[in-house]
Amino acid sequence: MPQPLSGVRVVDLTRILSGPFCTALLGDMGADVIKIEPPSEGDPVRSAGAGRDGMSWYFAAFNRNKRSVALDLRSEVGRETLAGLLAKADVLVENFRPGVLDAMGFGAARLEAINPRLITASINGYGSSGPYVARPAFDFVIQAMSGFMSTNGTADGEPLRSGPPITDLVAGLYCAFGIVNALHARNSTGRGQRVEAAMMDGIISLFAYLASDHLVTGSVPARAGNHHPITAPYGLFTTADGELAVAPSTEAILRRFLRTLDLEAVLSDPRFASNALRMRHHRDLDALINARMSSEPRQIWLERLNAAGVPCGFVQDIGEALSDPQVLHREMVLDVEHPGHGTVRMLGFPVKLSETPCRIRHPAPDHGAHTGEVLAEWRSDK
Amino acid sequence: MPQPLSGVRVVDLTRILSGPFCTALLGDMGADVIKIEPPSEGDPVRSAGAGRDGMSWYFAAFNRNKRSVALDLRSEVGRETLAGLLAKADVLVENFRPGVLDAMGFGAARLEAINPRLITASINGYGSSGPYVARPAFDFVIQAMSGFMSTNGTADGEPLRSGPPITDLVAGLYCAFGIVNALHARNSTGRGQRVEAAMMDGIISLFAYLASDHLVTGSVPARAGNHHPITAPYGLFTTADGELAVAPSTEAILRRFLRTLDLEAVLSDPRFASNALRMRHHRDLDALINARMSSEPRQIWLERLNAAGVPCGFVQDIGEALSDPQVLHREMVLDVEHPGHGTVRMLGFPVKLSETPCRIRHPAPDHGAHTGEVLAEWRSDK
Repeated sequence: MPQPLSGVRVVDLTRILSGPFCTALLGDMGADVIKIEPPSEGDPVRSAGAGRDGMSWYFAAFNRNKRSVALDLRSEVGRETLAGLLAKADVLVENFRPGVLDAMGFGAARLEAINPRLITASINGYGSSGPYVARPAFDFVIQAMSGFMSTNGTADGEPLRSGPPITDLVAGLYCAFGIVNALHARNSTGRGQRVEAAMMDGIISLFAYLASDHLVTGSVPARAGNHHPITAPYGLFTTADGELAVAPSTEAILRRFLRTLDLEAVLSDPRFASNALRMRHHRDLDALINARMSSEPRQIWLERLNAAGVPCGFVQDIGEALSDPQVLHREMVLDVEHPGHGTVRMLGFPVKLSETPCRIRHPAPDHGAHTGEVLAEWRSDK
Repeated sequence: MPQPLSGVRVVDLTRILSGPFCTALLGDMGADVIKIEPPSEGDPVRSAGAGRDGMSWYFAAFNRNKRSVALDLRSEVGRETLAGLLAKADVLVENFRPGVLDAMGFGAARLEAINPRLITASINGYGSSGPYVARPAFDFVIQAMSGFMSTNGTADGEPLRSGPPITDLVAGLYCAFGIVNALHARNSTGRGQRVEAAMMDGIISLFAYLASDHLVTGSVPARAGNHHPITAPYGLFTTADGELAVAPSTEAILRRFLRTLDLEAVLSDPRFASNALRMRHHRDLDALINARMSSEPRQIWLERLNAAGVPCGFVQDIGEALSDPQVLHREMVLDVEHPGHGTVRMLGFPVKLSETPCRIRHPAPDHGAHTGEVLAEWRSDK
């Protein structure tokens, strides 16, 4: 069965997280991803996180659908071999600090000479030029510098990084998006180009109304915890046996929420007659809602409110989420056989295509397992 | 200048945030995005958030590079006009609740009959089938159900949603990635297909080692605030005039961090001799680091540590981030002229292509401004 990127050859110089995520997205879509690793020690993630039977499940998840070629890029022979691969590749992806690829002898001019159809993609922290070009980057630091942390947390607490390292992953996803666009452009232009996704740019692009409201008013959004900055009631409410997240996003949904609670009458209370008033008196309103919802268990409220069209849900931990019936129905948890390393469970595919779907063609590779195979294959190819 | 998606026609039935973000990403890459809005009232975001000169800057940002066509899809004439547009389109994008498009008369079989080359893309909360298919979704609720909130916050505080509505935006980005892949696949297959990005799937895909470690060990990650779950020291440290985020991600970088502080000797203290010991005694070590860093202002430490290759940065608010010299260098803030509505500032392009870059071809449209133009244009097209 063909996939969207079947036949697309990716030379993958990335390591750790942002880059391997990008190339895993391309591999899931069918690209032939060749992971280049130093012969002595491979991607540091091979030995990171928890594992079993000699396999890090973190590595396995982010390196599925790739083959591994061991090349010493510090040696002339290794660099010549890389040049040979690049001559027949469609895409090069790297997440070095800016300048490292040039220093290795693969600056833009050389890459153009080797293969004018090559798409060269870079994931980095701040971008490959500008005042911060020499700064080392790391997810936590980008979360701080970008403004993300300033919006994340409670009103009386400190700015917080997000749980997952989202600036790495968002940059990897943007890079994959840029690469597929560049492949599409190449159909018309016949030429490759440079694609760049900076972690700082990527996370900033997710600020939505927080950014647009700041740009027009100059005001800086306050951290609001689980309260909505401009809507009340909204947040976590207390039931007989736990909390329920409820987001009545419009006036009509709010009315349905309160009606389901037999509390619609509060809207004629002068404290709660408009959204602005409810924002001011939200503690009073929350107390009324909590008192009512405490009378029944959360499952009952979940069913009643969903039936009434009010968005609501439990606060699930990762274990609950990854065994949630909907998540399993979506095949968001996969069992992948790794010969010699047992069965590895990993996340599934976040975007579904009906006719040319993502799939596991092969598991994450052992270090250097495909060196001979790939070099022979690509050499024999015209 | 051609762009990657020049000539790609997108019929955009989306509203609010996740869908308009997806189609803005396509429009930025050159697609001709036709935003279909009801004649009576357009996208609710037209009147959301702060604005100036009659233009919501939130709307302007998420609807640049689109044209607006007013169509009443509740009327037979409106639906026939939509069918005519779809016959000549490449992509349809919608973010209705599952089943709504079918109920409007545009189920899969009808769409296939209208245009077998059409790519039909859906962004929704939980997916278009499965036990939660009928549930209404909303960013906050997906953050709760997905497990994201369980990882976000401090060890002694409650689970927190992220500042920005990231599940909307991540789903929009995945959908755009899926659409461009489907366009690529169509070059081979000659046929369209269905693309689906669920908010729940998208946010789960960003859990990285939090997911893989849970899947192998069964343990549930604790909320760690700004501390790293498996590395110490790491986090916010106190300088003479504010905090500095420091992420010494490897043993070598930790050594450079402590050397820059003249604190390298602490590594021979038995409390701090290994990462495991430093995790156990991190308060003691943080106190030593804070005492030393309090002697100088944060700018001095920022420069010294960056020069030593230690990732670090300020916790900037959104105002500071959007006026940061690096962010401006990257053109992540754009001034866009909106005839009749003044100059609107908005975020720039999160992925950079060197030869066929994203650009502003036209500003966000007035409601229904292009109805006649687009209908005439597409009717005359073969």
